[in-house]
Amino acid sequence: MIKKILIANRGEIAVRIIRACKELEIETVAVFSEADREALHVQLADEAYCIGPTASKDSYLNFTNIISVAKLTESDAIHPGYGFLAENADFAELCKEVNIIFIGPSAEAISKMGTKDVARETMREAGVPIVPGSRGIIESIDDAKKLANEMGYPVIIKATAGGGGKGIRVAKDEQALVKGIEITQQEAATAFGNPGVYIEKYIEDFRHVEIQVLADSHGNTIHLGERDCSIQRRLQKLIEETPSPALTEEIRAQMGDAAVKAAEAVAYTGAGTVEFIFDHVNKKYYFMEMNTRIQVEHPVTEMVTGIDLIKEQIKVASGEKLSVTQEEVTFNGWSIECRINAENPEKNFMPSPGKIQMYLPPGGLGVRVDSAVYPGYSIPPYYDSMIAKLITYGATREEAISRMKRALSEFVIEGISTTIPFHLRLLEHEKFVSGDFNTKFLELHKVMES
Amino acid sequence: MIKKILIANRGEIAVRIIRACKELEIETVAVFSEADREALHVQLADEAYCIGPTASKDSYLNFTNIISVAKLTESDAIHPGYGFLAENADFAELCKEVNIIFIGPSAEAISKMGTKDVARETMREAGVPIVPGSRGIIESIDDAKKLANEMGYPVIIKATAGGGGKGIRVAKDEQALVKGIEITQQEAATAFGNPGVYIEKYIEDFRHVEIQVLADSHGNTIHLGERDCSIQRRLQKLIEETPSPALTEEIRAQMGDAAVKAAEAVAYTGAGTVEFIFDHVNKKYYFMEMNTRIQVEHPVTEMVTGIDLIKEQIKVASGEKLSVTQEEVTFNGWSIECRINAENPEKNFMPSPGKIQMYLPPGGLGVRVDSAVYPGYSIPPYYDSMIAKLITYGATREEAISRMKRALSEFVIEGISTTIPFHLRLLEHEKFVSGDFNTKFLELHKVMES
Repeated sequence: MIKKILIANRGEIAVRIIRACKELEIETVAVFSEADREALHVQLADEAYCIGPTASKDSYLNFTNIISVAKLTESDAIHPGYGFLAENADFAELCKEVNIIFIGPSAEAISKMGTKDVARETMREAGVPIVPGSRGIIESIDDAKKLANEMGYPVIIKATAGGGGKGIRVAKDEQALVKGIEITQQEAATAFGNPGVYIEKYIEDFRHVEIQVLADSHGNTIHLGERDCSIQRRLQKLIEETPSPALTEEIRAQMGDAAVKAAEAVAYTGAGTVEFIFDHVNKKYYFMEMNTRIQVEHPVTEMVTGIDLIKEQIKVASGEKLSVTQEEVTFNGWSIECRINAENPEKNFMPSPGKIQMYLPPGGLGVRVDSAVYPGYSIPPYYDSMIAKLITYGATREEAISRMKRALSEFVIEGISTTIPFHLRLLEHEKFVSGDFNTKFLELHKVMES
Repeated sequence: MIKKILIANRGEIAVRIIRACKELEIETVAVFSEADREALHVQLADEAYCIGPTASKDSYLNFTNIISVAKLTESDAIHPGYGFLAENADFAELCKEVNIIFIGPSAEAISKMGTKDVARETMREAGVPIVPGSRGIIESIDDAKKLANEMGYPVIIKATAGGGGKGIRVAKDEQALVKGIEITQQEAATAFGNPGVYIEKYIEDFRHVEIQVLADSHGNTIHLGERDCSIQRRLQKLIEETPSPALTEEIRAQMGDAAVKAAEAVAYTGAGTVEFIFDHVNKKYYFMEMNTRIQVEHPVTEMVTGIDLIKEQIKVASGEKLSVTQEEVTFNGWSIECRINAENPEKNFMPSPGKIQMYLPPGGLGVRVDSAVYPGYSIPPYYDSMIAKLITYGATREEAISRMKRALSEFVIEGISTTIPFHLRLLEHEKFVSGDFNTKFLELHKVMES
């Protein structure tokens, strides 16, 4: 069993990992940038070391310094959290070379899923539904034109090395296609060092539904149901829930099986998420991508299954078997997560870093808060603006929503602006309450103007 | 449905009730003594009114002022919480007379269960096991001597109007019995205005195991399993958990049935708890008493069943049926509650009121905090010293305990002493960890000296 873990991250996910380690009686090593000396994860860990200046590239992305601290502290393993080094195959490979356990899948699995056209082809071969489109990288404009005509417009052009909404362009006709491919190739070459692009049929009206998977190194791969993350603003998820109000039992079972197949196709180990485009009108689902790490929204799955995903990650990395079989996984009730960001929703979500004067998180039945702030803490302006995740649980969706509204209304964060007022409005919106929405919800509905 | 509730209480239970009301979209009216102007329940309620000076008898026990505020605010109902007026049959009766719903059982049920010898006889008739002892009040010393000789010593002498550890005396032989009855009668006449006493076989080695019941006004009575509250200090519960490490499935089912019978015998409605003496050596259980109100430790039951007990109380009081049948109740995992008191465990649990300088409750998976304090809040010295309930949930007892230790260790309360260090020690104690203990645990084991 792993005895000591270095957490190569900051904020709430670093705190989340420290909590799991404490419960498993594993020692923890925090690392921090010069801007994060006062951070909660630094205070909660058994040991903490500064790994460089404020800029992420010099600290949280600094391979050498992180590995040095791991060696210095005799850590057995590194947990990368999400973001930063979590999906960096080179870092996973380096850990292996220096004999430190990387808590995540193999560099090969990260790499395969991180290169979009390779992932697409791997899924095709594994029998996981993918959006109709090109096989691999586009070789010639003529091939692209021909394929687009067969599929019908609009089509979407994607840089294979892109991600997070970057390197993507929609074409409504042939002229736009030709121009779009050219521009995307140029951009991708500059931004990602890889000009490869491919095209897919553009599905406009869909929900973002993803499946949580867990796999150990003994050949067991299971899924823990879905999360619906359709409420997004500029491709950033704001609210996630499980179960999805849009799935039938049949589709749920099919998507679960498909996700397990996807993970097995790359010999996946640990916790991962297979994201799907769910065409809720035609009840069809297509592989979007696999996130080869723990996700921000993992808590909602924990709330309905009772399974601690971070502990499972650590156990799997230690060589243990998963603590449950697929048959033993049960789903109870409903859970919703709201991401509380230090942003001003009335000023176009402008970041609002600064000092938290007063802080009192909500409590009581069915309320979970994952955060890394405290009264008097100054939120640095250099990193992610998410300062807390508020998760509620209820016997039904209605109860989870009413509990979320109650919890948001009693959440005290003074000194900065937050997205709490935005969430309170959103949760009152009849379309949200009905469960009938797609990823364009926030484009279609003005939440803050009323 | 009830539209507006006056909460005739303070502290965490007042906050707990306000939270349930908000989730049900019911308006709330807080009442407060002059010492509680800055209390959290006052800030969270829709309206708040001062009902008198600091002393409880002048404020939280002041029938006239509470009823006046209820009438003034057009409240449909009063929730008494626990303590104060919760088991006051006269107050329940008065509410009925002035046409306000008392959220609790009928005055008759409160009265029957509140008078110990009547409760004993009622249970005997209902077929609920009771501790061997006298039938009703002791009429003559000779009868008592004869009965004690038949049962064997030690026996326990109890004032019928006593409670909370008062009006109780153990007799090890006939001489002590004669003297004990005399003294207890005198004390009871003075303290409770009722000199009646009865005797029971004294069971020394037992666990305190209680069953949560719920009943509606449509004839449905169910139970939600047990809570083990054997960890007590001077008859005050400190830690509670569910399930009990000491019960078998068979005994659990029998005790559940017995508790339902007990409630039905007094036509009980709402939430109540049937407390049992569980003779864990002989695997026998005996009715101890019924608490005709919500209890401090109700959250552990909520954690494993997913049922919101306060909402059920309100629904039943509104005339609705229970939201679940006995068959629909499911039990998942394990839950433990630690009562965090403003007391100094290193100085014989001396109360430690005062100003909370820094406050940061723990968070994350499986952690629930029910509290009414906040950074900068001054705990008044006049009331209960309990300032927070920390509840954890885990898939197993081991996980619930490790999570509790983790949560206690990150709970920041500065400016006053609390029982957090005591709980941390206790949870490490091998007897506690083994689950093998009785109500004398804290007499037998010194937790704070090591």
